[in-house]
Amino acid sequence: MKSSIGKNVTLTLYGESHGPAIGIIIDGLPAGIAIDHDFILNKLEKRKAKGKISTQRHEADEFKIISGVFNGFTCGTPLHIMIENTSTRSHDYHPELIRPSHADYVAHMKYHGFEDYRGGGHFSGRLTAPIVAAGAIALDILKKKGILIGTHIAQCQDLKDRNWQDLEKDIETCNSLEFSVLDEKVRQDMIDHIEKTALEKDSVGGILESCILHLPIGIGEPFFHSLESQLSAYLFSIPAVKGVEFGLGFDFVHYKGSEVNDAWQIDHGIISTMSNHNGGINGGISNGMPIIIKTIIKPTASIFKTQHTVNLKTMENDELTLQGRHDPAIFHRARVVVDSMIALALLDLCAEKYGTDWMRL
Amino acid sequence: MKSSIGKNVTLTLYGESHGPAIGIIIDGLPAGIAIDHDFILNKLEKRKAKGKISTQRHEADEFKIISGVFNGFTCGTPLHIMIENTSTRSHDYHPELIRPSHADYVAHMKYHGFEDYRGGGHFSGRLTAPIVAAGAIALDILKKKGILIGTHIAQCQDLKDRNWQDLEKDIETCNSLEFSVLDEKVRQDMIDHIEKTALEKDSVGGILESCILHLPIGIGEPFFHSLESQLSAYLFSIPAVKGVEFGLGFDFVHYKGSEVNDAWQIDHGIISTMSNHNGGINGGISNGMPIIIKTIIKPTASIFKTQHTVNLKTMENDELTLQGRHDPAIFHRARVVVDSMIALALLDLCAEKYGTDWMRL
Amino acid sequence: MKSSIGKNVTLTLYGESHGPAIGIIIDGLPAGIAIDHDFILNKLEKRKAKGKISTQRHEADEFKIISGVFNGFTCGTPLHIMIENTSTRSHDYHPELIRPSHADYVAHMKYHGFEDYRGGGHFSGRLTAPIVAAGAIALDILKKKGILIGTHIAQCQDLKDRNWQDLEKDIETCNSLEFSVLDEKVRQDMIDHIEKTALEKDSVGGILESCILHLPIGIGEPFFHSLESQLSAYLFSIPAVKGVEFGLGFDFVHYKGSEVNDAWQIDHGIISTMSNHNGGINGGISNGMPIIIKTIIKPTASIFKTQHTVNLKTMENDELTLQGRHDPAIFHRARVVVDSMIALALLDLCAEKYGTDWMRL
Amino acid sequence: MKSSIGKNVTLTLYGESHGPAIGIIIDGLPAGIAIDHDFILNKLEKRKAKGKISTQRHEADEFKIISGVFNGFTCGTPLHIMIENTSTRSHDYHPELIRPSHADYVAHMKYHGFEDYRGGGHFSGRLTAPIVAAGAIALDILKKKGILIGTHIAQCQDLKDRNWQDLEKDIETCNSLEFSVLDEKVRQDMIDHIEKTALEKDSVGGILESCILHLPIGIGEPFFHSLESQLSAYLFSIPAVKGVEFGLGFDFVHYKGSEVNDAWQIDHGIISTMSNHNGGINGGISNGMPIIIKTIIKPTASIFKTQHTVNLKTMENDELTLQGRHDPAIFHRARVVVDSMIALALLDLCAEKYGTDWMRL
Repeated sequence: MKSSIGKNVTLTLYGESHGPAIGIIIDGLPAGIAIDHDFILNKLEKRKAKGKISTQRHEADEFKIISGVFNGFTCGTPLHIMIENTSTRSHDYHPELIRPSHADYVAHMKYHGFEDYRGGGHFSGRLTAPIVAAGAIALDILKKKGILIGTHIAQCQDLKDRNWQDLEKDIETCNSLEFSVLDEKVRQDMIDHIEKTALEKDSVGGILESCILHLPIGIGEPFFHSLESQLSAYLFSIPAVKGVEFGLGFDFVHYKGSEVNDAWQIDHGIISTMSNHNGGINGGISNGMPIIIKTIIKPTASIFKTQHTVNLKTMENDELTLQGRHDPAIFHRARVVVDSMIALALLDLCAEKYGTDWMRL
Repeated sequence: MKSSIGKNVTLTLYGESHGPAIGIIIDGLPAGIAIDHDFILNKLEKRKAKGKISTQRHEADEFKIISGVFNGFTCGTPLHIMIENTSTRSHDYHPELIRPSHADYVAHMKYHGFEDYRGGGHFSGRLTAPIVAAGAIALDILKKKGILIGTHIAQCQDLKDRNWQDLEKDIETCNSLEFSVLDEKVRQDMIDHIEKTALEKDSVGGILESCILHLPIGIGEPFFHSLESQLSAYLFSIPAVKGVEFGLGFDFVHYKGSEVNDAWQIDHGIISTMSNHNGGINGGISNGMPIIIKTIIKPTASIFKTQHTVNLKTMENDELTLQGRHDPAIFHRARVVVDSMIALALLDLCAEKYGTDWMRL
Repeated sequence: MKSSIGKNVTLTLYGESHGPAIGIIIDGLPAGIAIDHDFILNKLEKRKAKGKISTQRHEADEFKIISGVFNGFTCGTPLHIMIENTSTRSHDYHPELIRPSHADYVAHMKYHGFEDYRGGGHFSGRLTAPIVAAGAIALDILKKKGILIGTHIAQCQDLKDRNWQDLEKDIETCNSLEFSVLDEKVRQDMIDHIEKTALEKDSVGGILESCILHLPIGIGEPFFHSLESQLSAYLFSIPAVKGVEFGLGFDFVHYKGSEVNDAWQIDHGIISTMSNHNGGINGGISNGMPIIIKTIIKPTASIFKTQHTVNLKTMENDELTLQGRHDPAIFHRARVVVDSMIALALLDLCAEKYGTDWMRL
Repeated sequence: MKSSIGKNVTLTLYGESHGPAIGIIIDGLPAGIAIDHDFILNKLEKRKAKGKISTQRHEADEFKIISGVFNGFTCGTPLHIMIENTSTRSHDYHPELIRPSHADYVAHMKYHGFEDYRGGGHFSGRLTAPIVAAGAIALDILKKKGILIGTHIAQCQDLKDRNWQDLEKDIETCNSLEFSVLDEKVRQDMIDHIEKTALEKDSVGGILESCILHLPIGIGEPFFHSLESQLSAYLFSIPAVKGVEFGLGFDFVHYKGSEVNDAWQIDHGIISTMSNHNGGINGGISNGMPIIIKTIIKPTASIFKTQHTVNLKTMENDELTLQGRHDPAIFHRARVVVDSMIALALLDLCAEKYGTDWMRL
């Protein structure tokens, strides 16, 4: 269970950046779900590196469904999505020089020197492509159940997007945007800022804010399988995520209970909270309000500035100046990975409550 | 697997606040580990409500070991710790008035009206007592392996503790303190602030900062079982935790890659990072540096101010003025729960790498 | 996950024969299920030692529900059933003399000498009492869903019960009988044979044949979680079970495919098989026919004849003549344990397909 | 977790008989294990259909390692073995006529008519090829640890192989034989019998007897994860297995406790049993003696005789005369599948006790 997650809808991820292929197996989908290739492609497209603000490694990301789909519908057995590796330039990496803030050194130690170091091996961000393909299927299923998920870039350095307003509309906007900032001006400023950072051979990170709309009440368990526990386990699986918070999150420290308790109200028989500081979750369980999640994506570790490092061959201090193709920022690409992880976590939890057949009905 | 967590060292939690008993089962400890009752009591004592800054419900918290220990040593079979409920005043709660920011409403909906509402039932913070008892055993085992864990209260509203300095000594200080603030003056200010908040019938929250020292390199897995995923799943199991971050966490948003990358250095054959912005974790795996985790505990939901709510019987808007025994702050008590959850998560991960027998050798 | 089993309905077993208590936690039952104490007592009664054909250790087996039930209904949280140990005569056992075909020696080696050897410790057949209590709840839930389970003693040495005839009626008969043999004469012969064996200070085993009626089509998964895999994992958890087979089982060796293939037929729109040699399972999945399972319970290992053994203290060959209270046969008591394990396995599998809420609707 | 099994060494199986590929992912192998391609091929070869006693579908079974191996050694990440489907003749099957004793009907019902029916889809015996490839790796690792596994065909109809004699030598013989019968004459008789059965358009089954040698004491857990539970769960995952027994198994019914208890003896400090009726397992845990397992493989369901069936399109009784390529017996091919499943189950259990790094040291 090292590379698998999920009890009812189980994911198994495999592959190395410069091996023959990477992929994911989704197990637990009931038979009879229509698979929308274009929707998967659309999500993969949003994850892809593009323009000046991204790496110049352009993978085709052509996914193949190897099993689990028959005549366009899931057939009830494990669904295997494979993406072949085509654009691999292994000579770009110097395995003896461990890259700062990358997994090179821990991989070397954990795997006793047998790690596939080419292109970051299994630790490559490229592994998020199959996650996005699987996530697209999950997003599609949930959408048909009325559960909407969207993520905008809330902040990059001092640049802040506007807050959510009309949630349903904003989620739709997020999902249609290439660069998911709701405020048009901030969007352009952020793109400019990333381009400028790229020219400085540097990188930046960002805070992503996600919203889940219309999740039924009662999803999540007290304690060990709280909705926060489940969602955070999936979100911290994304490389570069270093923080996850719900509702006010760390801002709770500034307030008193009386300021941030979410009082209850009833209107035409519908119970809701007057505020949503808890981000739609009480006691680890969804309360019917929008689920609000923030995720920090740290600045890309690959920068073109010369950095101090250690040479594993000579075991001496050394310097590293990265060559190759790298992103000055990945948070805008990570956005669909976040959406995917949320959808996959929710699908598992919903299946627990409603059974796996629920997905197809 | 709703109330169980852990693959190699599995925890199962049960009990309701006003039922006969609450408890936890720890499964996976090898035989031959000495159980230190005093150490468990010491940790339970730190979790206990005390003085003006805590609830006036004083439970004896006398734990009994029902199974798994023979002649003072683990005997290899499931270790069951039970705490009987003695001080239960069920009339304090009005189940028809759902408490803001509590689990009353979600429990009512999730359990179709069959929930044990007395004292919060299974959602009571009291359930963290057996977690602390189990955590004490884990902390003790890890300590014998040289792995140290400590947590200080980093912030409560504007009051901030000093940063970590001498980690080993600071951790020891944390573990000896009743109210775990390293700076003596800030400690008293915080206590005063909580007392003042209590008089205002209000509550406050706080940020806890934990440090894990001497964790071996290589703990955690890429992606789904990253060290961050595992730790956050345990930490978000604690009621009132609404955010978890590692290293710089959300502060990463303010920096460029070149400012926060942790460059490598070697000294006398020992490889380490020159900074520790990643909090000791690269690619989801421990890198040998101290693991730094921040956790936000939101202000206690139970306040004595009158709040808006809904009456589930009349299905009308209503008001609630809580009676009974409540804490104006719980973060200082939650501190040992955080330590416990970290220790239990790490024990599980270490057992995966080294086998369960490792714990006793 | 050493002492836990089940994905949706999870069992966790704990306790030692001569410790303060033994028990089980059932996690995953939805709220709102009526708990029938008398039905549980009835099943525990059937498991109890009685008359000349059983041990003279008479435990009260008074179970207490510690959590998870409120006002007579499940409240959705872990259901903990505890049975206190009252009749413990620890001096009956000589831990230095390892009992043949018992777990004394493996426990000694596995637990490095720290095992609780008193009364067999965790290996005691007594641990099946909480399993039966949990099983009673599962049997009750399934029965309300129309799924019936019954087990008769098919064979003890040369004595063979008649085959199943009217399945629904036979299952009812089994469940009402103290000693579950359908043929009245064979029943008395078997009881006489056990009594005679007891006088000879010896023991016998038996084959139990179980039938599951009205299990919906489609339960079980291909390969790793086949219905046979799941059921056998639960059944082999019962001490003394050394074989499990489905349908014809090992007798398949005597036949050709044309003799034992189960041809399909349709009658008034209902598809069924003309024979049931596969015991209601094709490709690991229930096919709508009765599920037929055979389980062998070996002769009780505790006999009063003097046996060769090794003295762990002197590390020399020695002899052992058991004293104390032992059963000359346990298969008639194991019958309700088998029913319980089957019901618990099925509940888990049904919850996977239909969701946990299915149980209460 | 429908198509995955194993806690420490996790298998995930995917693929349909006539889809692009089938495969397996093994997760949990430590880095640094040499992968012996020839050994894997050797095992796949033994599983292959050959001669007159097997189907005429001849797959190349050319496996590709897609991930997890770098420069000939495991690199610590999920090891993905893929076998492309090349010889698919989809027109051989008439999906509207459900084949007796096959999974056609249950698949149709479970998957709501969306099943991939071509060549049995996911239920095809072909899926055992990747299991054998994974099993070969497990067998190789265990062998280097001194743990030997071998299986002979104990019985086919009235033809019985001789009993085990020199276990170490017999296991070696089994592993070198194409048709694993120890007695040369019985071997030829059995092959003749299968050929004769084939001419009669019929099929036969057989009993396989496996032996595990030098498994350390202490593997397996009491109750739910007993060695019998674990092994049987894996063995019943093999299509056509309808019974599993340990030691005397169902034959225990014929004996008294005094006849079949395994008395202990000590010789030069080594404790062993004087007999091995329990097949090396006491209380669910290995006791150091050879583990003896019997598995029944039922007669192949695919026979060329005309059979009664139902037409799913017309929903009327009909007849089926199979065309295509089928085996008159599969137990001789299933033998390496049994070896593989045993090895994979043991690897998981050993990793639990010793940690995953144990495999490479």
